[in-house]
Amino acid sequence: MSGTLYGVGVGPGDPELMTLKSARLIANAPVIAYPAPESGESFARSIAAAHIKQGTEELPIEVPMLPDRFPHEVYEGAANNIARHLSAGRDVVVLCEGDPFFYGSFMYLYDLLAPKHTCVVVPGVSSLTACAAAAGHPLAGRNSLLTIIPGPLDDAAIANQLRSCEAAAIIKVGRHFGRVRKLIEAEGLTDSAIYVERATLEQERVIPLGDIPENRAPYFSMILIDKGNRPGQADPA
Amino acid sequence: MSGTLYGVGVGPGDPELMTLKSARLIANAPVIAYPAPESGESFARSIAAAHIKQGTEELPIEVPMLPDRFPHEVYEGAANNIARHLSAGRDVVVLCEGDPFFYGSFMYLYDLLAPKHTCVVVPGVSSLTACAAAAGHPLAGRNSLLTIIPGPLDDAAIANQLRSCEAAAIIKVGRHFGRVRKLIEAEGLTDSAIYVERATLEQERVIPLGDIPENRAPYFSMILIDKGNRPGQADPA
Repeated sequence: MSGTLYGVGVGPGDPELMTLKSARLIANAPVIAYPAPESGESFARSIAAAHIKQGTEELPIEVPMLPDRFPHEVYEGAANNIARHLSAGRDVVVLCEGDPFFYGSFMYLYDLLAPKHTCVVVPGVSSLTACAAAAGHPLAGRNSLLTIIPGPLDDAAIANQLRSCEAAAIIKVGRHFGRVRKLIEAEGLTDSAIYVERATLEQERVIPLGDIPENRAPYFSMILIDKGNRPGQADPA
Repeated sequence: MSGTLYGVGVGPGDPELMTLKSARLIANAPVIAYPAPESGESFARSIAAAHIKQGTEELPIEVPMLPDRFPHEVYEGAANNIARHLSAGRDVVVLCEGDPFFYGSFMYLYDLLAPKHTCVVVPGVSSLTACAAAAGHPLAGRNSLLTIIPGPLDDAAIANQLRSCEAAAIIKVGRHFGRVRKLIEAEGLTDSAIYVERATLEQERVIPLGDIPENRAPYFSMILIDKGNRPGQADPA
């Protein structure tokens, strides 16, 4: 009997924003895996820590921070490790920041393992809705379009989307912050943009984009834009 | 001391996909409110039922299903009822299907109540990521755009988005199913589209769009499109 691979969303950061299901699966898992920096603590593991039982086997997946190169070999190595447990009949729970299928790295493991093993994806609270809650502003109006724009896209692609969108969330801002802010300014959208950093964590920061003094942002940051409404103002009826 | 209004996401349907935080707030709430049909059970309440304590005061918000007219008076009446509790110092927890700020009706109450009362929004698992999990397919590739398209939009708006999108989720499909399917066919995207109905519930149904015999869909349905990949196929590296 082969084990089951679970991709489990642990939510955006506040450990209380994990689902009951994720908490149960993590507590019962014989083996857990999670992305981890080359040194320091895994964010996903820190969110789930209270539910990890002593004796659980842990497989940290050490992902080097290479901005321009995708570390195939890291995910292939991790998938091989996980596959060994699955083939031996042990379930493996992969902890995923936010939601496993909302721009998460879990999809690489899924692609490598799903063809040969039973995989179950357990959705979690994504950074998208966590940032909207933190900003105190709905993501989009009643029947508005909402566009998710990854910050690493090139200038033309981002500008094009900013021009045509109704509401947008720019994700993976991080080191692209200065460039993305200039593009938003060039489209005259700064007053409709709100910046959210480390949503749901103690260090959460919500601030109108135009009021940010510095020109850089951490990895866990997002910019929300709503052309229909300036953030903080009520929707017109 | 005025009470606090909590907009609490209860997730997409499976009661185990509620967050620990939502479960705690619901269990401790002196007053809960939730959308309800004119007859029959409230879906949001049914998700949260196990956490509602005896003696909790309940305010069902009876929302008539009027496809083309927004029931302002219903939300105004509900906001007045809720405001009376808040002014008397009682916290009110509003149960929201999915996430409160992902196209939810909570935003109407929020607009009416947030200017005068303390409001806290607690994000939940949205139908967006629940449907992706059910479909076994990531919403979008690594740095792909993702567009959320409400089904009630007119033909030209939907066709325009289908043409320019990379990945898309068409929400609120319901009675627009036949029309939306034709638009997807016209753009040659049927083979890239997967239909998900009642994600995470017992009656969950996941099926390639082209394989659906009937020409209607329930309210809780979504169509996911990924031009980069046919659903079920692995991402190219």
